[in-house]
Amino acid sequence: MSANRDEKQRVASLLEAIAAAKGAQAWDLPAAHVEIATPASTGDDCAVLDLTGELSLVCGSDYVRGVRFALFELGLLDLYDLGYYVVVANISDVAAMGAQPVGVLTIIRYPSELSDDEFDAVFRGAQEAAVEYGCGVLGGDTGGAERLILSATALGICEQGTALLRSGARPGDTVCLTGSVGAPAAAVLYFSRSSAGEQRELPLDQRQELLSSWKRPAARVAQGRLLASEGLATACQDVSDGLRVTAEELAESSDVRVEIDEGAIPIDPIVKEVASRANVDPLALAMSASVDFELLFTVAPEQLDACREAFRGAGFPLHEIGETTQGRGAALRRRDGSLTVLPGVGWRHQQEDVSDMLRSALRSPSARGR
Amino acid sequence: MSANRDEKQRVASLLEAIAAAKGAQAWDLPAAHVEIATPASTGDDCAVLDLTGELSLVCGSDYVRGVRFALFELGLLDLYDLGYYVVVANISDVAAMGAQPVGVLTIIRYPSELSDDEFDAVFRGAQEAAVEYGCGVLGGDTGGAERLILSATALGICEQGTALLRSGARPGDTVCLTGSVGAPAAAVLYFSRSSAGEQRELPLDQRQELLSSWKRPAARVAQGRLLASEGLATACQDVSDGLRVTAEELAESSDVRVEIDEGAIPIDPIVKEVASRANVDPLALAMSASVDFELLFTVAPEQLDACREAFRGAGFPLHEIGETTQGRGAALRRRDGSLTVLPGVGWRHQQEDVSDMLRSALRSPSARGR
Repeated sequence: MSANRDEKQRVASLLEAIAAAKGAQAWDLPAAHVEIATPASTGDDCAVLDLTGELSLVCGSDYVRGVRFALFELGLLDLYDLGYYVVVANISDVAAMGAQPVGVLTIIRYPSELSDDEFDAVFRGAQEAAVEYGCGVLGGDTGGAERLILSATALGICEQGTALLRSGARPGDTVCLTGSVGAPAAAVLYFSRSSAGEQRELPLDQRQELLSSWKRPAARVAQGRLLASEGLATACQDVSDGLRVTAEELAESSDVRVEIDEGAIPIDPIVKEVASRANVDPLALAMSASVDFELLFTVAPEQLDACREAFRGAGFPLHEIGETTQGRGAALRRRDGSLTVLPGVGWRHQQEDVSDMLRSALRSPSARGR
Repeated sequence: MSANRDEKQRVASLLEAIAAAKGAQAWDLPAAHVEIATPASTGDDCAVLDLTGELSLVCGSDYVRGVRFALFELGLLDLYDLGYYVVVANISDVAAMGAQPVGVLTIIRYPSELSDDEFDAVFRGAQEAAVEYGCGVLGGDTGGAERLILSATALGICEQGTALLRSGARPGDTVCLTGSVGAPAAAVLYFSRSSAGEQRELPLDQRQELLSSWKRPAARVAQGRLLASEGLATACQDVSDGLRVTAEELAESSDVRVEIDEGAIPIDPIVKEVASRANVDPLALAMSASVDFELLFTVAPEQLDACREAFRGAGFPLHEIGETTQGRGAALRRRDGSLTVLPGVGWRHQQEDVSDMLRSALRSPSARGR
């Protein structure tokens, strides 16, 4: 067994990989032209992007912590998955603003026992996720730490004035969602219970379906770009803190009331199956701290037909799940027409054990929206 | 004693502070116009900067880890200082490329026992450092973690084609430095020895001088802008990994040999004093893993007079410390004309205890360049 490379050699191998990926990117924005002048491939302090035209730069940073990764601790996700995930999570924030990702910076800090193969796996996951969305890892920082620490910054561009904010919804808008929610929360609930020997196993394909929401999450870049470039949405954000919290935040930012129809929320059968086995409300599970990357957005009445047409034309699902009204907060409209608080519990950034939180909270009356 | 605010309240208070700072920024670049469209102040997923013109975006991410902060562990730096430091360290990378900082994204993760005052101190330090350099914290991420974790991304802009790289030095260039080096390493060496009761104390003003290199480090933004906008430098980087390593990296990137004159390196008296008390070579201490943020750059012969004139006109010190030749690597030219390896030890990213490293390494014959 050969010794691990040192930090300098690891950085050198990353820079080679980054340089090799430089030619792979292609963007197509009418109002702007982007070129990677220097992807930190020569070891410079920063990456350089040449930007031309009237454009908006959209930038966000997010961190991935171990405790969020109950499934990594259980051995169900590997280091490649973590690298992939941290990049998609950051690209999702850019997508939610309607921007085209143009590059990602990563911070990869690791304990000294991390092997070369493990180090490469983290970076490979990050790089392949970025390339999946038409950009690449431009640079960042690596080095030692007491434990694995991953964070990233995603950069995107869009035409000036088109970035999708949370604050633009008006009463009477239709509330839409790009896809179904709940699988990430269901995965955490199922696998942590499963590891505790609490239930009989799901079939392999269903277990894989649950895991894939964590292993290969999808950022809705194309949908965000469509909404921004065509001016179809009045407000937008991703639901990575869970649908309940997201709806509440959008309502607050836009100073409207968000009413969601109980029967309109898209929930996959696997989520219902896990909820049933765990004896929790499937709707509460789907709206809770489920780290979905679907987009929640609002569409003005005069744009609704155009939006439906655009999504149909592009082959994207469009779920109309409610509407905005005058007022405050978010509510669930039950099938009988009555209104109640949204079910579920939000992601708490300081929560240590998501699985425990989900299990205890989803059984409480308030989580069931009653 | 009132209870601490929760994460949501903390974020809200940050967003208020960010929004309040929005109007403070002003940039002046001939080829570009920058405006903060959305500083994440409405709680959006990302910040939005409107950019107009032909420009280069310069971006880098760096992490600050506890072990680098021996002085924080010793109680000599506070949380404000850490927030300030992580921003300056990132802005320094933008400065080294010759760009004007336009914004910073921060990641602040903290253990649950961190009080409101402590949380505010970290953020205040970060924000005030950014404002010091004409920009602001645009957004980022906060939340829980097992221990305090700080990282940041700095964004800067410069005219296209003017970014300063490490790779442009040619044989015959003059090697220059923007200021003296060694105080950060001397501070670590002095205070860790002092806390171990190994020596008599320095006078208060000298102790404060040592500490200020960590509490209020200075990024050389104005110097970098001068070099880039006037096309004065062929290569540039900051010396945050220590002068020895920086010289070696610049030599390797530019495929030249860097020769540094023993007598030309600017070293403050306080560094010599600490070296003398610790019985280590002052030159080795100054060139070692000292986290200085001065710029090391090279100037072509035909630009040297213009560079001297520009620095004199701006009131910036300019230290001409050597020259580049054909060949490889970096070397020290002794007063007798003989060449030897550069003294000192580089910053090792996986090093756990900088003080121990400095003490043992600086006493070894190889560290003394013999």
